[in-house]
Amino acid sequence: MKKILGSALLAIAFLAGPVQAASHDADAGIVAFNHALAAATRAMDNDAILALWEDGGTSLLPDTPPIKGKPAMRSFLADLGRQLRGARMRKFELACHAIQINGGWASEWCEEHQMIAFANGRPPFNGTGRMLLVLHRGPNQAWRLSREMWQPALR
Amino acid sequence: MKKILGSALLAIAFLAGPVQAASHDADAGIVAFNHALAAATRAMDNDAILALWEDGGTSLLPDTPPIKGKPAMRSFLADLGRQLRGARMRKFELACHAIQINGGWASEWCEEHQMIAFANGRPPFNGTGRMLLVLHRGPNQAWRLSREMWQPALR
Repeated sequence: MKKILGSALLAIAFLAGPVQAASHDADAGIVAFNHALAAATRAMDNDAILALWEDGGTSLLPDTPPIKGKPAMRSFLADLGRQLRGARMRKFELACHAIQINGGWASEWCEEHQMIAFANGRPPFNGTGRMLLVLHRGPNQAWRLSREMWQPALR
Repeated sequence: MKKILGSALLAIAFLAGPVQAASHDADAGIVAFNHALAAATRAMDNDAILALWEDGGTSLLPDTPPIKGKPAMRSFLADLGRQLRGARMRKFELACHAIQINGGWASEWCEEHQMIAFANGRPPFNGTGRMLLVLHRGPNQAWRLSREMWQPALR
């Protein structure tokens, strides 16, 4: 259970979007995407999170098999929701760097700091991580997550 | 020392290139890049490794500050070489997946398994990892690493 919850917490870090993206080469569309992802993650709104992924996206979490495609992501997030029932994200800070855009594709890397409060009196989770993201702009010009990897970061 | 060496070993995993890249959408240029990176890493040839990076590349290792640009990479690899003096890579297996090319940019993710023998009688290192890579094709059409993140993987 501890291991599963560990992965679940990593997943939240992994899926969490930036509060700010202050790079000078930032694209307004990507900044909007980042804010939408952060809002969906803070609300633990799985449908809103899934809507920000491409159908064929791949999510890479440490010590976890790759999560490929929306059906697998939906199942993973549903499990996560059950494990975190009653939990609440108390704090979420994130900064993204070096947004690089080339036509309909982009990449950026982000640092995040999160605190999660649990319903059962367990001490809150307080951790930091880093993500490398590959984004793809769809036919409607909206940016969506195509590939994402998460790793632990230094405090 | 143990922590530093841990990072050093991660760095080898991180910098290691694929032995194979069997994706059906594989580009011959990227397969060639992967083989060159694997060869340079097996030989622990820092100059050859650096030649495969873009000048402004960024390497992201767990619990390690981001390594940005060739001067920082050169310094990191030199430290690594001193820590691993006498060590030898006995085995290196890696498979890359889902090479995705869009003009002069590409991404792929890879799984690796490495075994390193040490000179001082210390037990060999045996580990697995996963990398998300962003590649950029330069003016001479050669692919170079632009961004890379490494994370531990399940056996």
